[in-house]
Amino acid sequence: MAVVTKISPLAPKAFPDLPVIKGVRFATAAAGVRYQGRTDVMLAVADAGSSVAGVFTKSATRAAPVLDCQDKIGKSSDAGVAILVNSGNANAFTGKFGRASVEAITSAVANSKNMPVERVFTSSTGVIGEPLPHDRVIAVIDELNRNLSENALKDAARAIMTTDTYAKGASAVVETPAGPVNIAGIAKGSGMIAPDMATMLVYIFTDAKIEQSVLQHMISSITAQTFNCITVDSDTSTSDTLLAVATGASGIAIAEADKEFSDALNSVMLELAHLVVRDGEGASKFVEINVSGAANDADAKTHAMAIANSPLIKTAIAGEDPNWGRVVMAIGKSGAAADRDSLSILFGDILVAKEGWVADDYREEDGANYMKNDHIVLNVDVGIGDGESTVWTCDLTHGYIEINADYRS
Amino acid sequence: MAVVTKISPLAPKAFPDLPVIKGVRFATAAAGVRYQGRTDVMLAVADAGSSVAGVFTKSATRAAPVLDCQDKIGKSSDAGVAILVNSGNANAFTGKFGRASVEAITSAVANSKNMPVERVFTSSTGVIGEPLPHDRVIAVIDELNRNLSENALKDAARAIMTTDTYAKGASAVVETPAGPVNIAGIAKGSGMIAPDMATMLVYIFTDAKIEQSVLQHMISSITAQTFNCITVDSDTSTSDTLLAVATGASGIAIAEADKEFSDALNSVMLELAHLVVRDGEGASKFVEINVSGAANDADAKTHAMAIANSPLIKTAIAGEDPNWGRVVMAIGKSGAAADRDSLSILFGDILVAKEGWVADDYREEDGANYMKNDHIVLNVDVGIGDGESTVWTCDLTHGYIEINADYRS
Repeated sequence: MAVVTKISPLAPKAFPDLPVIKGVRFATAAAGVRYQGRTDVMLAVADAGSSVAGVFTKSATRAAPVLDCQDKIGKSSDAGVAILVNSGNANAFTGKFGRASVEAITSAVANSKNMPVERVFTSSTGVIGEPLPHDRVIAVIDELNRNLSENALKDAARAIMTTDTYAKGASAVVETPAGPVNIAGIAKGSGMIAPDMATMLVYIFTDAKIEQSVLQHMISSITAQTFNCITVDSDTSTSDTLLAVATGASGIAIAEADKEFSDALNSVMLELAHLVVRDGEGASKFVEINVSGAANDADAKTHAMAIANSPLIKTAIAGEDPNWGRVVMAIGKSGAAADRDSLSILFGDILVAKEGWVADDYREEDGANYMKNDHIVLNVDVGIGDGESTVWTCDLTHGYIEINADYRS
Repeated sequence: MAVVTKISPLAPKAFPDLPVIKGVRFATAAAGVRYQGRTDVMLAVADAGSSVAGVFTKSATRAAPVLDCQDKIGKSSDAGVAILVNSGNANAFTGKFGRASVEAITSAVANSKNMPVERVFTSSTGVIGEPLPHDRVIAVIDELNRNLSENALKDAARAIMTTDTYAKGASAVVETPAGPVNIAGIAKGSGMIAPDMATMLVYIFTDAKIEQSVLQHMISSITAQTFNCITVDSDTSTSDTLLAVATGASGIAIAEADKEFSDALNSVMLELAHLVVRDGEGASKFVEINVSGAANDADAKTHAMAIANSPLIKTAIAGEDPNWGRVVMAIGKSGAAADRDSLSILFGDILVAKEGWVADDYREEDGANYMKNDHIVLNVDVGIGDGESTVWTCDLTHGYIEINADYRS
């Protein structure tokens, strides 16, 4: 197996200080699922009365843990919530063994906490097509239960890493008239990409009191603007999972209409999504793509994703080449409405092309200088309507080829 | 500009001997549009009575020459046909100047041959966003007319090359009760990819006598099974053009129902399509993807293209890694119907996965050995219906990154 130890050049300087989320505790352990010498299992346990919501991959070949989570989400219960995640093995494409492993683990956790199995959720990330050695996971459950701590969310972020080059966390505090509520989340993934190890997993916790249906609605709509607006290489994992738990331990209730809380949750989810892109396999540049002036928002997103997923644009950015022609190409191929002679393209603030032609005062040196930045913004105005969309991606470099052409050998 | 001189390892040993197509003559010239020391313009002139049909890119940002060809195709005329193609400049995203260049060139050719301008077709391939120096092209028209020859189709294949590493030609002879008819074609392109220089251009000539509407129907339906079933990197050129000319000089009429001729035309178009894939930027392996057992043929093609365009599968093939898990991932994300536990995957004849699980007698060494071939066949049975599709692609290597991350600098 190729060992990639270099930390992404786009990584943040340090893991952030995350606030304690009252009502939920965490523990990690080294179960030896696949990796040696590191933690590879995390357990989160939230108090009775917590609500839990989830968003999952739409893949038609979803892994067993995802199917199990989907079955359980949305059922009302006053019991606590447990989430157990292992890295090293994705328990994906493992046939009937896959479901058996999920049942074995969730039952063991449920028994250990005297909790209904319907409140125990699992995720697995790592190699696929190999049976999950779930006995190794079950063997550490007692240890996990003994070590549960309010302060171990950072450790949890480390335990779920696979090809990630750094642990990912984000948080927000919302001041309400009744006092502060806290949100903290962790994620792993190097894109919405491999079924092997780059699966995106996200766990968000808040001490706000939120009804399940309200929490579900919030994370579903925010996911559409955050995690579903990032792409590394257009490939979608069979295991992508986001779970959100509201413990209510702050005693402060949040209603659907609470814009301040919703904005804070959005900021946490967006930051985690950006952290995933910044750890995109081989990434050397973080790229924001803003499309405006499309026929409608859906068309704008189609254009933006066509740009974000174009290998020719991603390689041009890697090569620091202000190749606006490839942007025209991507708009043209996307399938959404466009008019060549109405397009405007800006690299950052630099107007490159306008109305079907290179802009009058555009100088190639300006474009080339701009492309040396490690945060690139492409602004495209389609010029035919009011539709808007923003997506985020990274460039396509030799590093991506190295990581993925040599993964299992 | 990065100069890529290495010939693709998948190139055929030599350019084939192409038969003379009676009724059409060719010439090439060095106009210095952009390149020095090589030919960069080709002219084909077919006799009066020829029919001409075309298939074009569906890009919403098509280049001026494509729009002009589309305007002219299908109009009935007894006049001859001229096709002028330049390399070095694509005349794409050149605003109103683009159309002016097309008009200038087509008018000059029409005048020189005393031919209606509606019968003069042009294509341009090369850099985009720079005005085409059409005066340089017009300056060589007399020279081209003087040098027209039945034997210069191979020279034409060379004149239209851009990032191609070899010239591409294919032919077929159809024996009919009335005697033989000939088909010969040339192509350029390193994929359906860049708007810069990798545009796919295809020109096919036959001495059969075929009504325009019949010829159009034949090339449209065959394109769906050939050129529209190849992909290098999922990016679509703004200039892709296929023109077919039937001179009728053999005196032998071909009707729509002539399966033998249609099969021969199919073989020429398929061979040209494969030659384009074999010259895919950075390609080290030629990949055939057969999907069967899908809900319908359209779903089968959706699955096949999802596999063919997956960066993770293309890099796995480059790394000679029999990573069937990535095939499961691509089927899952394609959006077409699938059932994880009904999938079968074969690498060549090696059954790798069956019914949601690695096949009983699959040995990783067998898969790894198979992947060392430079012609890889992936067979996927979705297991839920009768839909079938075959597509062709190449792998994704460091060569692709080198060519495209450094193209204009």
